[in-house]
Amino acid sequence: MGKSRSGNYFEDFRMGMRMRHATPRTLTEGDRSLYIGLTGSRAALYTAATNAGLAGLERRPLEDLLVFNTAFGKTVPDISLNAVANLGYSDVRFLAHVYADDTLAVESEVIGLKENSNRKSGVVYVRSTATNQSGLDVLTWIRWVMVHKRDPAAPCAATVIPPLVPVVAPSRLARHLYTASVQDICMTTGVTDLWDDYEVGERIDHCAAMTVNDSDHSIATRLYQNTAKAHFDGFVMASTPGGQRLVYGGHIISICKALSYDGLENALSILAVNGGSHVNPTYAGDTISCATMVLDKLDLASDKIGGLRLRTIGAKNIRGAAEIEFHSLEGGRAEHRSNVVLDLDYTIAIPRIAQ
Amino acid sequence: MGKSRSGNYFEDFRMGMRMRHATPRTLTEGDRSLYIGLTGSRAALYTAATNAGLAGLERRPLEDLLVFNTAFGKTVPDISLNAVANLGYSDVRFLAHVYADDTLAVESEVIGLKENSNRKSGVVYVRSTATNQSGLDVLTWIRWVMVHKRDPAAPCAATVIPPLVPVVAPSRLARHLYTASVQDICMTTGVTDLWDDYEVGERIDHCAAMTVNDSDHSIATRLYQNTAKAHFDGFVMASTPGGQRLVYGGHIISICKALSYDGLENALSILAVNGGSHVNPTYAGDTISCATMVLDKLDLASDKIGGLRLRTIGAKNIRGAAEIEFHSLEGGRAEHRSNVVLDLDYTIAIPRIAQ
Amino acid sequence: MGKSRSGNYFEDFRMGMRMRHATPRTLTEGDRSLYIGLTGSRAALYTAATNAGLAGLERRPLEDLLVFNTAFGKTVPDISLNAVANLGYSDVRFLAHVYADDTLAVESEVIGLKENSNRKSGVVYVRSTATNQSGLDVLTWIRWVMVHKRDPAAPCAATVIPPLVPVVAPSRLARHLYTASVQDICMTTGVTDLWDDYEVGERIDHCAAMTVNDSDHSIATRLYQNTAKAHFDGFVMASTPGGQRLVYGGHIISICKALSYDGLENALSILAVNGGSHVNPTYAGDTISCATMVLDKLDLASDKIGGLRLRTIGAKNIRGAAEIEFHSLEGGRAEHRSNVVLDLDYTIAIPRIAQ
Repeated sequence: MGKSRSGNYFEDFRMGMRMRHATPRTLTEGDRSLYIGLTGSRAALYTAATNAGLAGLERRPLEDLLVFNTAFGKTVPDISLNAVANLGYSDVRFLAHVYADDTLAVESEVIGLKENSNRKSGVVYVRSTATNQSGLDVLTWIRWVMVHKRDPAAPCAATVIPPLVPVVAPSRLARHLYTASVQDICMTTGVTDLWDDYEVGERIDHCAAMTVNDSDHSIATRLYQNTAKAHFDGFVMASTPGGQRLVYGGHIISICKALSYDGLENALSILAVNGGSHVNPTYAGDTISCATMVLDKLDLASDKIGGLRLRTIGAKNIRGAAEIEFHSLEGGRAEHRSNVVLDLDYTIAIPRIAQ
Repeated sequence: MGKSRSGNYFEDFRMGMRMRHATPRTLTEGDRSLYIGLTGSRAALYTAATNAGLAGLERRPLEDLLVFNTAFGKTVPDISLNAVANLGYSDVRFLAHVYADDTLAVESEVIGLKENSNRKSGVVYVRSTATNQSGLDVLTWIRWVMVHKRDPAAPCAATVIPPLVPVVAPSRLARHLYTASVQDICMTTGVTDLWDDYEVGERIDHCAAMTVNDSDHSIATRLYQNTAKAHFDGFVMASTPGGQRLVYGGHIISICKALSYDGLENALSILAVNGGSHVNPTYAGDTISCATMVLDKLDLASDKIGGLRLRTIGAKNIRGAAEIEFHSLEGGRAEHRSNVVLDLDYTIAIPRIAQ
Repeated sequence: MGKSRSGNYFEDFRMGMRMRHATPRTLTEGDRSLYIGLTGSRAALYTAATNAGLAGLERRPLEDLLVFNTAFGKTVPDISLNAVANLGYSDVRFLAHVYADDTLAVESEVIGLKENSNRKSGVVYVRSTATNQSGLDVLTWIRWVMVHKRDPAAPCAATVIPPLVPVVAPSRLARHLYTASVQDICMTTGVTDLWDDYEVGERIDHCAAMTVNDSDHSIATRLYQNTAKAHFDGFVMASTPGGQRLVYGGHIISICKALSYDGLENALSILAVNGGSHVNPTYAGDTISCATMVLDKLDLASDKIGGLRLRTIGAKNIRGAAEIEFHSLEGGRAEHRSNVVLDLDYTIAIPRIAQ
């Protein structure tokens, strides 16, 4: 059985282990179209070449979360093929725009390990970075994931918990992305709300909801070449507690981001994901709604753009976003109802009123 | 709730009100591929660059109904987010071909208003126009839609019913689209039936049928960035009479157009939609068949192309297109069985036998 | 009913009859993206432009089975619209790479005919060839298919059974495809297994499984413009023994090829399909697993690449690929369990260890 692959188990990981994930992936306009078709994204910067031109870009970049999900997918065969659960994200930074025909290569390094006390599994912390064909880093992120052990008796590396920052400091965010009078984006969205018009503590209930179909999440997850079995093997998943395939969490992030267009029309791009968790699983047939709270307003030392730190909570099968409750994040994790599927803390760039 | 958008209600519309819809949209080869994958279109002009070359075009244009559905989708957030039903189309004219990488911007003007006697809703008539990045009008259409009132007691504008033409006169159709010996299209379809071979009153039963899946219509409708809730929010739709999401009517038009390839193989493009109605709703799982009757043959003052005015009726869950009945349109609306989903009156360009 | 098409029935075919199928089809990057989204393909050569560069290609070609399925789809309206079953493939040879924006035209010739003894149907053997816009043959194949008679009493042509080779000889395989040190592909897959590392008789259990959704196979089959009714007309198929639409067999081949990435990571491209049969039908909801056996190692008189003749068996709704049994092909057809859906014999190119 020399060529029957089974992925890495917890005892296979070592601190400092580096992986070049297979294989690089060239993204194209075809991937963009599918991304719109699968998520319903209407984000201005990515919807029209003319919009990107207003923001000072020569070409229309590819959507941030298409890039994130593609890069994430690359890491799955090496890191999370035998995962119990994806536990969290930290320090996700979007460093440069990615354009159609760019080729992304992704590498990861193990930065933390902690065997669980039951010795059946452990938590792996990795720093992953996606680089384009010119060698420019376009995206970097930390995630931690609980991975099965092949053999509970196998010895494991000593515990190392990496330092994790709860929020990406403004000084570490990409600021050089926009060169023009980005306020013109308003002319295309018809909405005048800019950075200056959002208040810390303000809540936005996004008006639309989206039912997830089996093909939607399957096509999306395959597009990202993500091979995690829980998303694809309906026969095996039928005997799990949920009784069916799990929707890939990154698809839920994409849907919530798309739904959040209404109320954040002039958002330009995602600068960082500070943290996030997939609170409960989503299955085909579930309908996703979401609401956003402004956690902070960040001065990016630019007269063109400011940063908004946002918390978006996604929930399923509710009568409307107004039902979503924003519980405190004291202690790092909020208490959530069983219908909450996503709690995401991220930072976007949005134009400021011209000085 | 300052940034929680809820769309326009009937009392928000005023005669002459103009809307620039958010945001322009660049269409690409990726959108074309999805359109083929979602509808099964085989239309010759759009299937191969070499076919378009035979018709005298430098590049392969994007399918007419991809353009229509994309432009239509843009109008939804402003016009029909709170719609009860889309009632009709009129004077839809395809004015110029659209190519991959073209960017469409869409504007609408309110041209008619009529509050319903129950004061709970009203009918809004709009003229919408899509323009490409060079400022060229590529598509214009009238539609009317019944929209809820936010507050039944709210005062509304005085009733204005715009003049509507039942058919687009030949003189108002785009004629300049084809410059070459378009008869060569026959060489690629293997079918010799041209304009001269169709008779007024002739009926064509299209041989294929197509079952609509939930992901099919969801992906299509998202691709068009159409946000009408009835197509996406399965949780809310579960408590409506139909019990599930409605299939976007434009997707049904696309499917019927694709099915009508068999029997109309040499059709070049749609010049106009004279009128149409979504007679009954379609749900996922329904199987669509259609038949076409030739209503008129139009002389377009061209020795290359002629016009065929066609009436295509789509029906669901029948044993074959032969079961479809063509009832008279006396009085503007036909009596239809409950399995009829579409009654469309449109005009196509088709090559004439070379003189 | 002069323009209501019904396709060819068995009695319509004659030996030597040639068909130019409607219409040519231009493939694009959009089709590639959909192919990845629908199948989950990760094949190195097609996943990144940089990978194709390592193999000495100026551009990234389109996936072999996207080309095959597209070309196959073109033949359906003329050959298999009234098919009972697709019986087999032979001498399928991939002759040249196909690139985005290439236009494929497909022609077929009837090379064999055999009426069944019940006189209700017969077997049609065709040789089909796809040619690109420069007139270069890119793909050629034989298939035979059982087709209904319109009229059981109709006279048919005399029986001719064409000679069929069980395997494409190495001398007839395209060898000129790769010009560079293709071993560098290993750097992108992270796997070092090359031609020299595979043994005749070696078995590979591919670790992943894939559940097929209705939209997946519908979108794929429409993308290929394949119009066979059994894949699309759920209303009529509800009264057949299976009770639902059949998944197009070519989609199952694509899924098995995609799943076979794990264990054959450095495979470059398919050179030939020696034979294959769709042993049992697949329906939406079925989960596909597969295993591969190395049947032969072919010397292609190249120091860069060698050939592997592989037999891949796909099965549905099993606990894992290890359950699949490889029965003898004595007498041309293996005995298979009812869960086996595909038995495919094909030849791939894979780099050799540098001399």
